[in-house]
Amino acid sequence: MNKKLIRIIDAMKEAAIPQIIVTDTYSIGYILGKYIHTGERMKALYINENGETKLFMNRLFPITEDLGTDIVWFDDIDDAAAILASHIDHEKTLGVDKTFASGFLIRMMEEGAAASYVNGSPIVDGVRLVKDEDEREKMRAASKLNDKVMEKMVSLVGCGDSEELLTAKCHELYKENGCAGASFPPIISFGKNAADPHHEGDGTLPKRGDCVVIDIGGLKDGYCSDMTRTVFLGEVSDRAREIYEVVLEANRRGIKAAKPGARMCDVDNAARGYITEKGFGKYFTHRTGHSIGTEVHEFGDVSSVNEAIIKPGQCFSVEPGIYIAEENIGVRIEDLVLITEDGCEVLNSYTKELTVVPFEG
Amino acid sequence: MNKKLIRIIDAMKEAAIPQIIVTDTYSIGYILGKYIHTGERMKALYINENGETKLFMNRLFPITEDLGTDIVWFDDIDDAAAILASHIDHEKTLGVDKTFASGFLIRMMEEGAAASYVNGSPIVDGVRLVKDEDEREKMRAASKLNDKVMEKMVSLVGCGDSEELLTAKCHELYKENGCAGASFPPIISFGKNAADPHHEGDGTLPKRGDCVVIDIGGLKDGYCSDMTRTVFLGEVSDRAREIYEVVLEANRRGIKAAKPGARMCDVDNAARGYITEKGFGKYFTHRTGHSIGTEVHEFGDVSSVNEAIIKPGQCFSVEPGIYIAEENIGVRIEDLVLITEDGCEVLNSYTKELTVVPFEG
Repeated sequence: MNKKLIRIIDAMKEAAIPQIIVTDTYSIGYILGKYIHTGERMKALYINENGETKLFMNRLFPITEDLGTDIVWFDDIDDAAAILASHIDHEKTLGVDKTFASGFLIRMMEEGAAASYVNGSPIVDGVRLVKDEDEREKMRAASKLNDKVMEKMVSLVGCGDSEELLTAKCHELYKENGCAGASFPPIISFGKNAADPHHEGDGTLPKRGDCVVIDIGGLKDGYCSDMTRTVFLGEVSDRAREIYEVVLEANRRGIKAAKPGARMCDVDNAARGYITEKGFGKYFTHRTGHSIGTEVHEFGDVSSVNEAIIKPGQCFSVEPGIYIAEENIGVRIEDLVLITEDGCEVLNSYTKELTVVPFEG
Repeated sequence: MNKKLIRIIDAMKEAAIPQIIVTDTYSIGYILGKYIHTGERMKALYINENGETKLFMNRLFPITEDLGTDIVWFDDIDDAAAILASHIDHEKTLGVDKTFASGFLIRMMEEGAAASYVNGSPIVDGVRLVKDEDEREKMRAASKLNDKVMEKMVSLVGCGDSEELLTAKCHELYKENGCAGASFPPIISFGKNAADPHHEGDGTLPKRGDCVVIDIGGLKDGYCSDMTRTVFLGEVSDRAREIYEVVLEANRRGIKAAKPGARMCDVDNAARGYITEKGFGKYFTHRTGHSIGTEVHEFGDVSSVNEAIIKPGQCFSVEPGIYIAEENIGVRIEDLVLITEDGCEVLNSYTKELTVVPFEG
């Protein structure tokens, strides 16, 4: 049996969940080594505590290799959820992936699939959370490439191109550097847009004095990178400099708190506490970070409510920010950390010192 | 109250579902006129039979305009599903959108949100199925542009570019023609890849005699187009010609069956029956079509099991195909139809006659 499946079955026993259906594309891909995107069509990997597995798959997505599991095939015209329900032990609790579509779950309930239903995602999510040695190497390699792309992007942001054009160039840079592509739509935001953490790049052009948030990552050998730097165009105001230094110190404090035995919320608190102490608490409007691996956002966030104890092998972002729309100031500084036996390894090495880039606009 | 909401409440009464939560981005967008993508974060529009509405939204996605509904805000650290559950009438059945994440539904069940849970999607899906006059105009305009892009693509496929490069050019063509972009990843498949209806464009280069499946669509003013043509490079074998003519006649028969009062399965049967009669039944491996509107795949497919009666204002694809992998032959011909009072209007006008394009490779 594959090592990942052994860890999953151990976790099922510990959680006293005798059977689960894994339906998330990335979780199935993590276990079987094959990523099958089926859109709105149902797919599921059934696993029970005895190690029996069955993959439920639409015939439209043929599988030619041996994935080490039985496969139950169905067609578009079949009642897929009812077929799946008929293979579940009706007398026992069923763990269900959190992203499984409710329409299928409600149909399975109508068929009396299981004795009760619980959120089964913590099982596989908990295993995915802790990267094995092979995965750690891939995370390091992905971030190493991201340092190169960041260096290039910083050299480009003052050249007069719009956010949209820079975004397109960033996509190309990942491909040129051996990535499958960006791991998420690159964010390059000027001035007032930098003050909106969810801004999507548009035709906005750079202006002297703008802060520029560059939040980018690539997908290399199936693993994601993610890093943010904020630079300034031509000049930087005293106010922006003050805010930058607060965010940078918050980033450093968050990283220092990232170690085995501490809680995820301790990392959030280390970063957020400092920003609050400096009077900017209400301008730090998002969580401090997120786990990352084969997906850019994985289970396990760095927030005030996540009291989970940090384990060696975890990988997550530390990305405090301050966003003041009325002053057109937004600053975010993000690194990925990989938890070691006694602390953490920072996967990004691109400089965090305040940088003013030449502005030619 | 907006007209779409009135139609939805009528449908709720008819289905005897007193309250629903609409969670699909496009369904909420259809009702409120604003598309809010929240990724994995919960959002929901609660509607009850008295016409009361409440939108549940994460503060990370600020809304400045008046959407004509109360809004209940929550933060990342809140238990969003529990907050939503507290606003539901616990004594009554709740209709739940089919794509709502099971993790949230299971959490709501733990809170005893409703007396029972049913799939509520048929309510809003049924209203979205029938396009109003404004929507019909937009569907026509979107397909008109698609004719232009198809013409250009047909002129490009024999020039020696790879599938991947042609796909990139197709994306650009939609933007150049005033679309927001492609409505789905363009499919341009050569030879043996054409025989796989789910092939994703790669570095494959064209060869003389290849069939080329071109399945493309754009997004114009919020509405989607979608059309497939199959052309041949330099020459066409007698066998491929025979198959082409069978698919073309199946496409015509499907379109002829698309009229008010007939059933969706009658359209499937008209196309599939002919292909089967000609001995190619087992090579037509997918449904005959799908509904389309603000999304490229909407509720209501053209398949043998959908016995719903067709109504004026519906819009769907008729896209029979024959795929014979061992002969490197794949042919699909797809049009969109808009149901009128006594038949249908075909939204695409690009030629369906067998076309051999010059091959310069």
